[in-house]
Amino acid sequence: MTTEFTIVKIGGDVVDDETALESALQTFATLPHPKVLVHGGGKVATSFGKRLDIIPTIIEGRRVTDRESLEVVTMIYGGLINKGIVARLYAMGCPSVGVTGADAGFIHAHKRPPTNGIDYGWVGDIDKVDTRFINTCVTNQLALVVAPLTHDMEGTLLNTNADTIASTIAVALAHQYNVTLSYAFAHDGVLRDVEDPASVITTLTHTEYQSLRANKNIHSGMIPKLDNAFAALEQGVHTVQICKYNDIDQTHNGTTLRR
Amino acid sequence: MTTEFTIVKIGGDVVDDETALESALQTFATLPHPKVLVHGGGKVATSFGKRLDIIPTIIEGRRVTDRESLEVVTMIYGGLINKGIVARLYAMGCPSVGVTGADAGFIHAHKRPPTNGIDYGWVGDIDKVDTRFINTCVTNQLALVVAPLTHDMEGTLLNTNADTIASTIAVALAHQYNVTLSYAFAHDGVLRDVEDPASVITTLTHTEYQSLRANKNIHSGMIPKLDNAFAALEQGVHTVQICKYNDIDQTHNGTTLRR
Repeated sequence: MTTEFTIVKIGGDVVDDETALESALQTFATLPHPKVLVHGGGKVATSFGKRLDIIPTIIEGRRVTDRESLEVVTMIYGGLINKGIVARLYAMGCPSVGVTGADAGFIHAHKRPPTNGIDYGWVGDIDKVDTRFINTCVTNQLALVVAPLTHDMEGTLLNTNADTIASTIAVALAHQYNVTLSYAFAHDGVLRDVEDPASVITTLTHTEYQSLRANKNIHSGMIPKLDNAFAALEQGVHTVQICKYNDIDQTHNGTTLRR
Repeated sequence: MTTEFTIVKIGGDVVDDETALESALQTFATLPHPKVLVHGGGKVATSFGKRLDIIPTIIEGRRVTDRESLEVVTMIYGGLINKGIVARLYAMGCPSVGVTGADAGFIHAHKRPPTNGIDYGWVGDIDKVDTRFINTCVTNQLALVVAPLTHDMEGTLLNTNADTIASTIAVALAHQYNVTLSYAFAHDGVLRDVEDPASVITTLTHTEYQSLRANKNIHSGMIPKLDNAFAALEQGVHTVQICKYNDIDQTHNGTTLRR
């Protein structure tokens, strides 16, 4: 029997809300090993950036990670949020190691080349996940807490989408484990009607998703997450769910995706 | 034969000086495994604190780590400096894992109780180093990069002296390895005459140290470092040296301590 492996991604809305974060960590701490927690950044990086008088560069509506912004996300994601979570999980009986993709060099990435004339700055696109360090932590009963940062293998950290980090780790582990990937946020799941919080879709196939998307019934912010999620399913991840932060221990809550 | 183990502590003066840091990391990268790098904080935390309008609390000349200052050191030491070093070491062919004492719960500490009526705030005094995670990294040919932060085991990070972290790790590993502990800074070693940079003491015994100290021939900033260093020797660390950042690969440069 293949070992179960759980990967949980908590969104910025969870990180920003102390009550939600506490609840998400408590739930994550009780999940059986092996497990990985990937966290988003939340608004705290933006608010610290403002306090530091760092004005975000926006080109055609897209945020650009310039040098100063990279320093801010390294401090906030890699330091304040990541190490805070690690200390709290330890107190909850869940020892973990807080990492970026540069640690043990376990996520290989490159700086995104300018796309349609936009240089996104110090943003990483992932090439590969080296699972050796993850397996070392598994062997030692340690959870991994991953900040949304990778590196270019040449000494520079890169701001990287947390959803993509979570799904790429899930895919890399799928040949070895029975992987469940949970995207946890403040809502109950994907809604059939964005105006109606009770309209959670319990099971969503790729065909249904395409039709909901075509009819503009999916919140635009959900589209990259669902694209990532379906890509992970397609590449061998056993279960993908999108659910509330305190439902990550129950794979039948929220929205479960089907091929 | 007992395996050699090198622990290098780089001071804040090295972290603050880009040329010195680059040179220290290049030298550390070439050291044989197993090895640990402990880094200080430098002035960057103070300067970010200022930019964030966080006014350090000073009581009777002693800096107090209040909540906001703890956030700043977590960001700067645990994030900006630590993860920056990890990314650069990887590029230099030295994969490493960047940690605080909370990661894998490997340094057990407690919040310092008020001393002589002064509450130092969120400052950690170390109880124990659990060497299991260090040994896991050793087995996997990974260096450790340790930020000067520990935790109270109850979810709170603690600002902790980097010299003490380095010497405590050295002592914890001394029964298992032949440990060399190098305190690296911008100077050539301990000076016999603080006014004369050429007066480096090549070998310093504890008796000589006490006499130099009694005659006020030791720079006051060196005293806690030397106290730490002699305590480590006393507790089984094989070699302790105090040297320039690019001399850490040569145990006969700088000042070597003798019992």
